[in-house]
Amino acid sequence: MAKKKPALKVIPLGGLDGIGKNMTAVEYGNDMLLIDAGLMFPDDDQPGIDLVLPDYTYVLENEHKLKGILITHGHEDHTGALPYLLQDLRNRVPIYASRMTLGMIKGKLEEHHLTEQPVVEVQGGEHIDLGALGVDFFAMTHSIPGALGLYIQSPQGTLLHTGDFKLDQTPIDGVVPDYHALNRFGAEGVDLLLSDSTNATRPGFTGSEASVGASLRHIIKNAPGRVFVACFSSHIHRLQQVCDAAVAVGRKVVVTGRSMVTNTKVARELGYLNIPADDIIDAFDVDDVPDDKIVVLCTGSQGEPLSALARMANGEHRSLSIGPDDTVIISATPVPGNEKSVQNIVNALARIGCTVFDKSNALVHVSGHGSQEELKLMLAMVRPKFFAPVHGEAVHLRAHAKLAISMGIEPDHIFVLDNGDTLEMRDHKVKIGQPVESGVVYVDGMRVSDADPVVLRDRQKLSNDGIVTCVVTVNARTHKALEVDVSARGVSFADDGDVINGAQDAVRATVDRASEKAGWTVDASRRAVRNSLSNYLWQATHTKPMIVPVVMEV
Amino acid sequence: MAKKKPALKVIPLGGLDGIGKNMTAVEYGNDMLLIDAGLMFPDDDQPGIDLVLPDYTYVLENEHKLKGILITHGHEDHTGALPYLLQDLRNRVPIYASRMTLGMIKGKLEEHHLTEQPVVEVQGGEHIDLGALGVDFFAMTHSIPGALGLYIQSPQGTLLHTGDFKLDQTPIDGVVPDYHALNRFGAEGVDLLLSDSTNATRPGFTGSEASVGASLRHIIKNAPGRVFVACFSSHIHRLQQVCDAAVAVGRKVVVTGRSMVTNTKVARELGYLNIPADDIIDAFDVDDVPDDKIVVLCTGSQGEPLSALARMANGEHRSLSIGPDDTVIISATPVPGNEKSVQNIVNALARIGCTVFDKSNALVHVSGHGSQEELKLMLAMVRPKFFAPVHGEAVHLRAHAKLAISMGIEPDHIFVLDNGDTLEMRDHKVKIGQPVESGVVYVDGMRVSDADPVVLRDRQKLSNDGIVTCVVTVNARTHKALEVDVSARGVSFADDGDVINGAQDAVRATVDRASEKAGWTVDASRRAVRNSLSNYLWQATHTKPMIVPVVMEV
Repeated sequence: MAKKKPALKVIPLGGLDGIGKNMTAVEYGNDMLLIDAGLMFPDDDQPGIDLVLPDYTYVLENEHKLKGILITHGHEDHTGALPYLLQDLRNRVPIYASRMTLGMIKGKLEEHHLTEQPVVEVQGGEHIDLGALGVDFFAMTHSIPGALGLYIQSPQGTLLHTGDFKLDQTPIDGVVPDYHALNRFGAEGVDLLLSDSTNATRPGFTGSEASVGASLRHIIKNAPGRVFVACFSSHIHRLQQVCDAAVAVGRKVVVTGRSMVTNTKVARELGYLNIPADDIIDAFDVDDVPDDKIVVLCTGSQGEPLSALARMANGEHRSLSIGPDDTVIISATPVPGNEKSVQNIVNALARIGCTVFDKSNALVHVSGHGSQEELKLMLAMVRPKFFAPVHGEAVHLRAHAKLAISMGIEPDHIFVLDNGDTLEMRDHKVKIGQPVESGVVYVDGMRVSDADPVVLRDRQKLSNDGIVTCVVTVNARTHKALEVDVSARGVSFADDGDVINGAQDAVRATVDRASEKAGWTVDASRRAVRNSLSNYLWQATHTKPMIVPVVMEV
Repeated sequence: MAKKKPALKVIPLGGLDGIGKNMTAVEYGNDMLLIDAGLMFPDDDQPGIDLVLPDYTYVLENEHKLKGILITHGHEDHTGALPYLLQDLRNRVPIYASRMTLGMIKGKLEEHHLTEQPVVEVQGGEHIDLGALGVDFFAMTHSIPGALGLYIQSPQGTLLHTGDFKLDQTPIDGVVPDYHALNRFGAEGVDLLLSDSTNATRPGFTGSEASVGASLRHIIKNAPGRVFVACFSSHIHRLQQVCDAAVAVGRKVVVTGRSMVTNTKVARELGYLNIPADDIIDAFDVDDVPDDKIVVLCTGSQGEPLSALARMANGEHRSLSIGPDDTVIISATPVPGNEKSVQNIVNALARIGCTVFDKSNALVHVSGHGSQEELKLMLAMVRPKFFAPVHGEAVHLRAHAKLAISMGIEPDHIFVLDNGDTLEMRDHKVKIGQPVESGVVYVDGMRVSDADPVVLRDRQKLSNDGIVTCVVTVNARTHKALEVDVSARGVSFADDGDVINGAQDAVRATVDRASEKAGWTVDASRRAVRNSLSNYLWQATHTKPMIVPVVMEV
């Protein structure tokens, strides 16, 4: 009797910008599996935060059910929370992922001394059972090799999770999306589809990765000097195309930037990146090779100020420099929020006078996510009964929902979820379930702290207005001021003796006046100091810095 | 004898992002005129700064030569520094500008109690003499009415300054660029051209403002509910097209957002914006009108968090709200750096479920700056002997220089300038002159401070890492600690008693140890406190907040 079985629950966790992008729990009775364990990078309005993790309290509370962690592909937003999660779990449940994905994870685990962690390599076409849940992995194409989608079977019905995907008929490694599997699952009956919405507002079909190759070859072949190519270091197919173009025209490849060095090493070891050892040279040997025999693969396509490209553009790289006869290819699009940083690098390169190719003037980048026609094709093949767009901001999820409606899926069979919402499947029917605790946690130094709005608000206030500290020692008997010390940081009047002295005088007068009142307390005196200082500074400078008053009886 | 005459000097001042965009001085002997007096808005890496002004020290030092201030058009980056500059000048030299531009300036002057400032209304086709310098004004098209270009004659030769421009054959007010004047000046002989480079990397011809009208009319006509249009409030032609579309389909226009209210008022008073009074209604009367009879003109096209659009999208506007059946038109492109803020609003609108049109899915915006074909056309008509691309970032200036080279201008007749560079013209020949003091100054509260890197560095440090204040009172005789008070703001451990207590203990031990050393001073003790606290916090929390140590003898 279906009624007596527990529901199949789908629980997207965390994710400021993409429901279910970083982590999704799938649970049936006492069996739970986790899809991905990724992180986010902080926004401008989260100053000083190093990383943002999904809040996986729910996973820890239900650890006894956890049977496995499935990682769809090796990008940070799908793998980056693993070290934190694994340290918080008491038991070592296995990680299931493709060879490439495990290669990307391995370094992370070693760095965090998690070498005992069991990992299981899987590939498209494989099936595993985790308790009452069955999982079929199938090949998908994305901007990193070894991307897998998941088809999950439970006693209440099935769900298909695309992972991040595009539909590329000519991927560089020849591993096309497994359309046969998708159509077979569709024919068997997919009750719920969770599908990548990143490009749901973009019409048409995303171009094949192969289409970038011709353009890269053309530029590299005709460049008079050195060619520098900046792209995501995990975009192994892009790197392969750059290496192929370099080797074809007799140029040596130099690799620079920490993650670029690491990832090319891993990808070469695993056989995902193929370039003869002779064709790779060290950055310090570059001066022995003529400029027109060099291609530099570098980090910095997002304008990161400390990246190899930024250092080279600003003349601060320890071994490589860019000259006016050189060519720079920015083989990426800025992630929202990075536009200005990338533009800063483009301007620095313009000052050098080198030739710059980017998305605006050459076909040097295509997205790793499918556009509207690919999303519709996915829906047409999978033919889900219920649909939840995932991986995307509010605008993308809703655009994806509209695509589904245009293909005949009933609006009430479509779920546009929010953080902490859950879906429950019973007898092949899906509905919204009880919400769970969700959200994000911040990594700041060593700490994993709750999303503490006070700390962030304080930091923004400090950053906008600066801080003034006022220390007053008062006579313990008379409560009159002995010494007053005002110091200021991050304010324009920090070194202005008139303002600082004026502030000290104002505070001293206030403290002395307050000392004569009945019922004197340190707290009351501190409040008086704060008010007096705040008023004085507003009058004198029209600024409102944060004020830290300290009153000490001596 | 040409040798004995002084050189004609062209001096672009300030401008982080655009040489000569905000302010340019033109000087011949004892006659100087200023072209524009604009400001910049601060970047993310200038926290807490309200405004950024060009450093006009050079103008103040040479005030005795100043004969007039010419304003090309009414945008903030060309007018916003006027109140500061006028307050700093001892004499009231007249401002020359078009009727529209003066209308935009007037409010500013009143706000700063500068009502005595003489202003002279000029229009295209007029000529004025300022000492030995002659100035012809000519009409140009831009994203604000009343834009003027300048043709300046001196005993050493002539220069033509385009101002911000596009070449729009069908501008909304019918005032086309004065091609006759441009060609006449070209025939007379323009020795130096300064031309707008903003869109120098964009191929083709920028679309006419009129091309946006059809699309706006179509959307407004077919929208089922209210229509909200966000655009720059100074873009009077855009506002006119929205009003025309609204009136044509029988919708009333509501205006909201401070600058939108001000600018529509000014533009209507001056006759630049034409809409019957009956067709404008107050935001508080909006509930008396059916939704499909309303168009709301609002600020917020750049995603400004306090703008009318942001408030409405977040349900925080005092009189207007957006519902799922409504339509929002974002009739603008994000200025670099604002992409994420705009995307935040788009996501908030997606959550409401309303229909959103922006540049990505409808022709609801065209640029106000000419693209490559227009820049080339300008060069072809003016036929300058020497050329300096202005108004643009490094990449745009260099792209514009390349266009000029492609049209046969000698590379050594082209000057890509940097802040503070100057040009000198003698006998119709131009070369680089002596640089002058230049740069930017910050407005922060009431103060106009020098670009103080320490303050900004402190603010960034505060914002990233927070601050810990440590106050120690020591016995004036024994130098041992009496009281230790540690308080922290903007750090994750601000409320963590263990860390704060541990820090106090560490500091106390350090102070007591230091008290036993020979040659004790308050300074030495303060240094010891700083080091001790810094080490302790790094060990305990792996963070490095700013530390303010205060040591007081009592």
